[in-house]
Amino acid sequence: MHDRPPSQIAESIEVIAFDVFGTVVDWHQSIAREVDAMQLTVGGDEFALAWRAGYRPAMQKVMSGELGWTRIDDLHRLILDELLQRFGIVHLNEAQKRHLNRVWHRLAAWPDSVQGLTRLKSRYTICTLSNGNLGLLTNMAKRAGLPWDCILSAEVFRKYKPDPAVYRELAAIFDLAPERVMLAAAHQDDLAAARACGLQTAYIERPAEFGPNNLKDVSPDPANTLHARDIGDLAGQLGC
Amino acid sequence: MHDRPPSQIAESIEVIAFDVFGTVVDWHQSIAREVDAMQLTVGGDEFALAWRAGYRPAMQKVMSGELGWTRIDDLHRLILDELLQRFGIVHLNEAQKRHLNRVWHRLAAWPDSVQGLTRLKSRYTICTLSNGNLGLLTNMAKRAGLPWDCILSAEVFRKYKPDPAVYRELAAIFDLAPERVMLAAAHQDDLAAARACGLQTAYIERPAEFGPNNLKDVSPDPANTLHARDIGDLAGQLGC
Repeated sequence: MHDRPPSQIAESIEVIAFDVFGTVVDWHQSIAREVDAMQLTVGGDEFALAWRAGYRPAMQKVMSGELGWTRIDDLHRLILDELLQRFGIVHLNEAQKRHLNRVWHRLAAWPDSVQGLTRLKSRYTICTLSNGNLGLLTNMAKRAGLPWDCILSAEVFRKYKPDPAVYRELAAIFDLAPERVMLAAAHQDDLAAARACGLQTAYIERPAEFGPNNLKDVSPDPANTLHARDIGDLAGQLGC
Repeated sequence: MHDRPPSQIAESIEVIAFDVFGTVVDWHQSIAREVDAMQLTVGGDEFALAWRAGYRPAMQKVMSGELGWTRIDDLHRLILDELLQRFGIVHLNEAQKRHLNRVWHRLAAWPDSVQGLTRLKSRYTICTLSNGNLGLLTNMAKRAGLPWDCILSAEVFRKYKPDPAVYRELAAIFDLAPERVMLAAAHQDDLAAARACGLQTAYIERPAEFGPNNLKDVSPDPANTLHARDIGDLAGQLGC
């Protein structure tokens, strides 16, 4: 993974930015549970996967300029309306649709997240670096008890990850050289984009991100600075 | 001040945004203390007042378009360089100037701030709405223990208060009608601008903002929703 001793890595960084959906919170189970409780014509697992699958194409429309700047809340709603139609769900009123769309504000943290972040916060500045909008991330943090020092979002930069501007401006916000900042994420493509901008990177294993029946590959990529089982393990590796 | 009972006001808001310099932290005493300790040719009180006096004209240059978007850290440095020249202080090296400029990241909270904010946080989403930049506000919060749910800054909006866009976009970030948001500040002009955009407002008395020898008028303006002695008093009035 790296040839430097862990203590040297630990000393070289000041800020750890976290991807959120999948890395800090369990979107799949949170959504599946709420959808199952609604007793729709479609199961929660299928609905959650379909909703998330619409996410990249929707952001791509913003990144390509086809859509002007649009918050994730609104992209989630566009996808939701499409899914309700696809699955023939016609009985929800506007308030119910709005409530369902805000399930993304109510995602539950992975069991290790709050304690792991709290340990890291004792030594580092910890922040989000998410494509989720600021209101969503704030509501989520308050509900789940995520102890961020600062909430940063694509909304601040008006660019979605993996646009390089997002990673560069993150370092600029803290007036730090990029190598003093680490991105922690459960997605290798996010980490690769951060690395290309000079950030250090930590991969967080979340094998059940897409549900327990859909385990994903969590093999290490030697290009990352660190590889951690979960956020608690990351804290341990960094001596927190 | 208002004709509604306090419990009705308390129920009508979801987010309380705070001005920071002067309202939550004591810039005058924090800066005066550090400057006095440096034993320069100028006293800390005078230096602090002169630095702060350069703040509005510097922001005005950004607001008028004379300067492109510039963070407060950089505006503070422009003013600092001018003051060092004005007071004939020539012995500081670059690292010392940089350290002194970051005194704005090290401002101490007023004695009631941390406890008052913590009480308010139990019921409301609390955030900053400051012209200070995100890195500055994050460093300050971490050092002073300010328990923000979210740090919002002019840097997010690329407009300085009292530009109306700042107050409007604050409400939009949380997807709330403006009247569901309250601005708390020790400055009537900031509150007036927020009110013009439909926000509720709370004035916080900080008579010693400009130092104990320079007490300011803290008379109530009946246009504000609430008038509070300090942040603890605001929490009490809102039933927290």
